[in-house]
Amino acid sequence: MQKFKVTFFPDNKSIVVEKDKTILSAAISAGVYVNSTCAGDGVCGRCKVILKSGKVSTQPNGMISAEEKKNNIYLGCLTNIHSDLEVEIPVSSRLNFDKLTPEELEERLGSLYSKVEDIQQVKAEFDDGLFKHSPFATKLYLELSQPTLNDSVSDLERLYRALRRFEEFPVIQTGLFNIRQLGELLRDSEWKVTVTLGKRNDTVEIVLIESADTTDKNFGFCFDIGTTTISGQLIDLNSKKILGTKATYNQQATFGSDVITRIVYAGQADGLEKLHEAVCNTMNQIIRELVLENNVDLNDANCIVCSGNTTMIHLLLSVDPVHIRKEPYVPTANFLPVLRAAEAGIKINPRGLLSCVPGVSSYVGGDTTAGVLSSAIYKKDKLSILIDIGTNGEIVLGNKDFLVACAASAGPAFEGSGVTSGMRASSGAIQKVSINKDDFSVKYSTIADKKPRGICGSGYIDLLGALLEAGIIDKSGKIKVEDKRIRQTETSKEFVVCFKEDSDAAADIVISEADIENLKRSKGAIYSATAILVKHLGLEFSSISEIFIAGGFGTYLDIEKSIKIGLLPDLERSKFSFIGNSALAGARQILLSNQAMVMANILASKITYFELSVDPGYMDEYSQALFFPHTDLAKFPSVKF
Amino acid sequence: MQKFKVTFFPDNKSIVVEKDKTILSAAISAGVYVNSTCAGDGVCGRCKVILKSGKVSTQPNGMISAEEKKNNIYLGCLTNIHSDLEVEIPVSSRLNFDKLTPEELEERLGSLYSKVEDIQQVKAEFDDGLFKHSPFATKLYLELSQPTLNDSVSDLERLYRALRRFEEFPVIQTGLFNIRQLGELLRDSEWKVTVTLGKRNDTVEIVLIESADTTDKNFGFCFDIGTTTISGQLIDLNSKKILGTKATYNQQATFGSDVITRIVYAGQADGLEKLHEAVCNTMNQIIRELVLENNVDLNDANCIVCSGNTTMIHLLLSVDPVHIRKEPYVPTANFLPVLRAAEAGIKINPRGLLSCVPGVSSYVGGDTTAGVLSSAIYKKDKLSILIDIGTNGEIVLGNKDFLVACAASAGPAFEGSGVTSGMRASSGAIQKVSINKDDFSVKYSTIADKKPRGICGSGYIDLLGALLEAGIIDKSGKIKVEDKRIRQTETSKEFVVCFKEDSDAAADIVISEADIENLKRSKGAIYSATAILVKHLGLEFSSISEIFIAGGFGTYLDIEKSIKIGLLPDLERSKFSFIGNSALAGARQILLSNQAMVMANILASKITYFELSVDPGYMDEYSQALFFPHTDLAKFPSVKF
Repeated sequence: MQKFKVTFFPDNKSIVVEKDKTILSAAISAGVYVNSTCAGDGVCGRCKVILKSGKVSTQPNGMISAEEKKNNIYLGCLTNIHSDLEVEIPVSSRLNFDKLTPEELEERLGSLYSKVEDIQQVKAEFDDGLFKHSPFATKLYLELSQPTLNDSVSDLERLYRALRRFEEFPVIQTGLFNIRQLGELLRDSEWKVTVTLGKRNDTVEIVLIESADTTDKNFGFCFDIGTTTISGQLIDLNSKKILGTKATYNQQATFGSDVITRIVYAGQADGLEKLHEAVCNTMNQIIRELVLENNVDLNDANCIVCSGNTTMIHLLLSVDPVHIRKEPYVPTANFLPVLRAAEAGIKINPRGLLSCVPGVSSYVGGDTTAGVLSSAIYKKDKLSILIDIGTNGEIVLGNKDFLVACAASAGPAFEGSGVTSGMRASSGAIQKVSINKDDFSVKYSTIADKKPRGICGSGYIDLLGALLEAGIIDKSGKIKVEDKRIRQTETSKEFVVCFKEDSDAAADIVISEADIENLKRSKGAIYSATAILVKHLGLEFSSISEIFIAGGFGTYLDIEKSIKIGLLPDLERSKFSFIGNSALAGARQILLSNQAMVMANILASKITYFELSVDPGYMDEYSQALFFPHTDLAKFPSVKF
Repeated sequence: MQKFKVTFFPDNKSIVVEKDKTILSAAISAGVYVNSTCAGDGVCGRCKVILKSGKVSTQPNGMISAEEKKNNIYLGCLTNIHSDLEVEIPVSSRLNFDKLTPEELEERLGSLYSKVEDIQQVKAEFDDGLFKHSPFATKLYLELSQPTLNDSVSDLERLYRALRRFEEFPVIQTGLFNIRQLGELLRDSEWKVTVTLGKRNDTVEIVLIESADTTDKNFGFCFDIGTTTISGQLIDLNSKKILGTKATYNQQATFGSDVITRIVYAGQADGLEKLHEAVCNTMNQIIRELVLENNVDLNDANCIVCSGNTTMIHLLLSVDPVHIRKEPYVPTANFLPVLRAAEAGIKINPRGLLSCVPGVSSYVGGDTTAGVLSSAIYKKDKLSILIDIGTNGEIVLGNKDFLVACAASAGPAFEGSGVTSGMRASSGAIQKVSINKDDFSVKYSTIADKKPRGICGSGYIDLLGALLEAGIIDKSGKIKVEDKRIRQTETSKEFVVCFKEDSDAAADIVISEADIENLKRSKGAIYSATAILVKHLGLEFSSISEIFIAGGFGTYLDIEKSIKIGLLPDLERSKFSFIGNSALAGARQILLSNQAMVMANILASKITYFELSVDPGYMDEYSQALFFPHTDLAKFPSVKF
């Protein structure tokens, strides 16, 4: 088989591949991240590349315009390699990996989760007030009595005896690693050691034994592994302080934008391995940055708790998720044993432990359990709804007596992925927009007040509301006026939010009719799922006393605009609270308290899964929600334009 | 550094070593096994080698005779390499590794443990009658209900649910290995699987999951890891049948004949690793032969239980035993966690489990616990003594209320090691001897009625008795008559038991005054330890109602002669029972019953260790026992010559 060298710019990464491979697959192999939401099926049209030199063959498709064709632009997944190539990945096809300075990161991330923290502090009973501080990994400093002829129990039993003076642990486990070094360690340290205990599947494990008193250095990580975004925090397990927070795109995004395309990709040769590597790389990158910025030794990071949807957790552990998408939709495991993080490829202390928050079903995962835990809706007398807006949206309705959950495939639009100028809620993201009704001039504000680089989820909600209010788009989302900001592209109309010269973006920041369609489907999926769930339980929206909105929207979500576009139901505004990343907050509670870990297990068993697609009214409800705010305006009495 | 090639014959193995290394260390590195009971300290004089060519330097020592010097014989441990060498290891310096045909092995070993089995069957309450059959690894065949939309619990929870219908296991553990293959395996096998459950540190672990019903194939091994001899059995865990038994010398013997020299050797560079490898190699060889002969697939061997003295168990697990020989004599661990056998280098199913019988102290190990278990002295109302005769002899005195144990360093003479014509109790070993008082003619019988190859422990006991009865040796063990069978060698007198031409041995089968001295010290150590233990507890021998003798003596031990030479106390003969390898029998009970495993833990905690050396009367008692039968003949009223 003939082989050719393909070089990608601006990365300047090369790879040798066999003839006829696609440019997209070559890019993936070379570790060059290219946008692709359909995982190479030639459907999403996002993996456009510029051919600088070389011969290719390509399949006809409707996604490359005549103009693009002239400029040597090809769809990476449909273009086969016939010679050595030089390929440029244009900005529009690159994944928005944040390449910020540590200062920028600090600035952005310092604020990113502060809102969540404020909320957690206000609702104190959700967190520390409820769960006793007993972290996943606990350090105990022991001064052992030295052995004598009259007290010659073995080193290990001496250690156990001292531990049992602290607490009557029923089963203590120890690995050969610790036993092998025990004799020397105890004597070298003059019988003064610090033991790190980890909770492991209803037993207690001696994770580490160290000389002297190291109890002041005990750190852990909590993670929310989203389909599009991965967020992690470094926690001081003693003070319970969040030392830092990072979020970045899940590197798996190259292999498809939703869980279904990922599962399909996992079924291909090496697919599972590549997806596993991608999530590990993303997490290890966050871990590395967090320890470096906080001057923490990676060896002092002893544990990690991960929440994530069921597919993400399977991929993290290299467990084939294939059966999740086949009827009757059964995952391999919802409750996973505690493992050594190293077994999953996560680089903390080599003996550190990893726990995954238990999930409910194939489409309601541990992220939902963690959200229920941190929002505390499971404790309330009155009915609440938790809406977690992500690529897979989850809605939970219930109170202290019952909890029912469903899942809606919302797509990644609200996470700034799969939309022309989308970006994550990070520095330079437009998050607030207003448009002058008369001259269509735009005012916006960005996260960290930087020059705009793109639009994040909360910005899109504001923008849609503003476009509706200004009469620029109609209820179906079509642009219906003319202006210098409104342009006809080959495929659809677009509205310029910010011209290139006023931005830090590589092109004008725009919203196209296709973007609006995308966002409309996202908000329609969330709203209709919520509505069906309420109806399924024989309830009305009016019986709900509180609605918690969770998701990675940054510091800001405009409830008024969210209702105006029909994302949220039209209820009394005081019923809504935006609680930030509830899955991450729940994982942190579990990291910090064994009681929260126990509660998560109870909740995952208690939550009932409701499969939306079996409800005969679902498609109808969804279609009706594909308007702004809704086909049935009686459902949104307060919304006026 | 100059390097030289050393070639050993008859092995024809070569190795390149640095100048000035000793020949013994070169032999060890080359994997050539050379006798050495002092681990290279130049004391035991057993590592004599013949220099065929090359230059060496050697240290003067009293162990090489003028005759030997002339014949280019050197002490391997005191001779340094100065050029390429050719070295021959004479038969007298080789370790007696058995190189028998499978038929011979079968013949020998089939009978070797039959006596033990008979005893076990007679004393039924010791074994099956007491402990419920619940092997260390248990297989359960499950036909799982297939998942449906209404019953969509995950694969792992489905499996757990089915398991809990069998028994309410409190904690079930599963590794990532099994979870990763679970989804495919369940579907490929149409939800019919066999689960192998292993008992692991008070939890139950899913060791293996296999397609279809494989419950008929479930095997395990029990081992007794002795300082000199390692014995193993392959057990059908369903039928409880012993499929085969093997015993061979512990390959660690090259590094010293007793635990102290092994511990010293472990402290040298790579010493621990080499000792670990040697015990693994020996065990893996036994395992390999047993599965081959019984047509068992190694993958169906799921567990192994090992008894052994504390040092042997440390070395098996590569745990440094250094502190065992330093006051206050504390081992790293007496109670070891259940491990995967592969972690210790033992080759059964790669996920199979290994359990070590818990020990009491540095010098009373799991072999003693196992012996107490299988002899069942812990259940008796009346007082019993268990005497386990090995390189390290252990004596336990007690009943259902208390158990006290002590250890006596007896040396390997009764295991046929460290004595001129010694061999293990295997085919061709002289085990019964009588000598005509008038003409000193010798009658003997051998194991399996083969031509004699050497003398085993029970043979030496008979031989000593016969030499005393015939008046050939006096009470101090000196040869005091003249005969054609009696010769003066350079160092001592010897008595020819069997001339070379009547034997399968490489030389005349003899017993020398040095051998008799060795055996006398061994029997003296055992007897005096027993006597001191009885005295320490304020008892008389007459208060003991039963004495159990354990050890690898083959099928035969003459109690009368054992008393005559002063190995055993002079009590009513009906009080004595020879129970064979009680440590192996105990390990087998634990392998077959969880109740036995629990009991072993109780016993190891219950047995009190008594340190002989702290008793002011010990040295006196030992000196008095260095006669046949004893200095104080009043203690042996029935013994007459």
